[in-house]
Amino acid sequence: MSENPTIALDAMGGDIGPDAVLPAAINIYKKYPDLNLVLVGQEDSLQAGLSRLGVEQDERLRIHHASEVVGMDEPASSAMRNKKDSSMRVALNLVKEGTADACVSAGNTGALMATGRFVLKMLPGIDRPAIITALPNITGHSHMLDLGANVDCTSDHLFQFAVMGSVLSSVVDNIEQPRIGLLNIGEEEIKGNERVKMAAQLLSDSKLNYVGFVEGDDIYKGGAADVIVCDGFVGNVSLKTSEGLARMIGHFLKQEFSRNLLTRIMAMISLPVIKAFKKRIDARRYNGASLLGLRGIVIKSHGGADELAFTNAIEIAIKEVHNALPQRISAMLEQLLTEE
Amino acid sequence: MSENPTIALDAMGGDIGPDAVLPAAINIYKKYPDLNLVLVGQEDSLQAGLSRLGVEQDERLRIHHASEVVGMDEPASSAMRNKKDSSMRVALNLVKEGTADACVSAGNTGALMATGRFVLKMLPGIDRPAIITALPNITGHSHMLDLGANVDCTSDHLFQFAVMGSVLSSVVDNIEQPRIGLLNIGEEEIKGNERVKMAAQLLSDSKLNYVGFVEGDDIYKGGAADVIVCDGFVGNVSLKTSEGLARMIGHFLKQEFSRNLLTRIMAMISLPVIKAFKKRIDARRYNGASLLGLRGIVIKSHGGADELAFTNAIEIAIKEVHNALPQRISAMLEQLLTEE
Repeated sequence: MSENPTIALDAMGGDIGPDAVLPAAINIYKKYPDLNLVLVGQEDSLQAGLSRLGVEQDERLRIHHASEVVGMDEPASSAMRNKKDSSMRVALNLVKEGTADACVSAGNTGALMATGRFVLKMLPGIDRPAIITALPNITGHSHMLDLGANVDCTSDHLFQFAVMGSVLSSVVDNIEQPRIGLLNIGEEEIKGNERVKMAAQLLSDSKLNYVGFVEGDDIYKGGAADVIVCDGFVGNVSLKTSEGLARMIGHFLKQEFSRNLLTRIMAMISLPVIKAFKKRIDARRYNGASLLGLRGIVIKSHGGADELAFTNAIEIAIKEVHNALPQRISAMLEQLLTEE
Repeated sequence: MSENPTIALDAMGGDIGPDAVLPAAINIYKKYPDLNLVLVGQEDSLQAGLSRLGVEQDERLRIHHASEVVGMDEPASSAMRNKKDSSMRVALNLVKEGTADACVSAGNTGALMATGRFVLKMLPGIDRPAIITALPNITGHSHMLDLGANVDCTSDHLFQFAVMGSVLSSVVDNIEQPRIGLLNIGEEEIKGNERVKMAAQLLSDSKLNYVGFVEGDDIYKGGAADVIVCDGFVGNVSLKTSEGLARMIGHFLKQEFSRNLLTRIMAMISLPVIKAFKKRIDARRYNGASLLGLRGIVIKSHGGADELAFTNAIEIAIKEVHNALPQRISAMLEQLLTEE
């Protein structure tokens, strides 16, 4: 890792594109004087965007041209085949060739996953990349993976996810021995499915701090585990269920407060509380999922991320760069395999 | 179905037991003058409970003695082997022998599932029972299954769930052709896992009103489907994730409103709105999951159900009895299989 790390930003990705990425980049530029940023995307458009924000390129904030953009609904295979000069791919190339230490993109997950894997390759000993993010809970937060990179996982995959999640949690949250929980259900007579039960055995036999099964309601309760491991299908459904439910609850709260003049007055009076509450459950503060298992740091921002959310995603990249996350994952994996 | 249906209540089940079941039974007794209720459990204790509530047994509300109680954490196998006179099992026996038209229990899900299956047997053409419940969304509600009865499902199982869910939705919500959605994830290049893709094919080829894939965030968004089909592992995690998240959001809202004197005053002023909001997201109004696929109607109430919640569960049983749900499922299945 260089003394002054460089982060490549896919400046065209996401639903908002440069209008979110550029202001976020400028926030980071001001906050981290030892950091370099590369804005990857259509030069003219990015140049104009920076000008509108009253900022000029310098050696710490520069534009790297890429002529194409991967569509948010574009299949990964099409992006891989037809968009070799996409902002996403070029940003990943910068990581590959060592020009950048990490890449942040709000582009479509499937394309980012597939291209990231193709360009950067997997870490030795890791079969599949996994998506991990921090999730708030009553007592703080935990990390959960995989959130959708893999649909059919073996127990070995789940074990590898646990290793990667453990390293990330220890690095990002400064926990010496992160507690690893395996997501399961408690309804069946014989708890859980075969893959989960076999993964539990692997984890029990390892040096990881495995604390056993956790259930869906433990995710937001907190206290159960620092890292929650599951396959990508389950993780993705759980995460999206949460997004939908939070939106519904917000909708109902708003509806009740805007029912009539009286309730609107109540809303005005309670505004400070409502604002504080909204901040507490603001998903933007948790934006930024790491694509683990690659030979390089790739952060996936939510597609709808705005300036604040994208800024958060860049800060996760910075933390991982400072801690050389991929190297630490490799070292941990080697250590665990040697111990066996 | 008899003119005056009879519902058997496992009066000892759940975290609260008779203190929730008896008041709920009395609510139902008063509200439905053409309905009979059988309270199954320890006679003395139930008799004393009724007396405390100022109610006496009559031909419409009677106690049926059962000497044992299945523990909330008791493995299903142990309940099956050792508790042949449990309130749960005796209530199911009453359905089996035709004394009751349905059974409602807040006892442990695993034991209720296993015992229900053992006592009542499966409907012809259905391999596995499934748990279904109504979930609120922004535009109304939908039904989702399976919520934890099955951990490893084939595409045939998912198809059978769709059939059962479709009948339940048409019966309970009076929808002629309920829209069936298959829960999936959209992150992978090739969407979803093999089982889901094969189930999608089966559903597309059937006469069911299959509307395609839905994702986790569609559950609470509404408008996507009337019935959401998934395997029990995914459904259980999704449901429990929701429980946990709703609890966390409630916790944060309460915390913000009780931060200091000023916010407490704001809470007092906004109380009508807060109450209306709480009512909107009150899970008790959705309490009562149906165990589908059995030759009899079995409703599983949440273990923590109070009087209001348990009352709701009984009302679901009443609706299913009036509509002869198991017979309708059989008829629909036969119709679908004949058409093929």
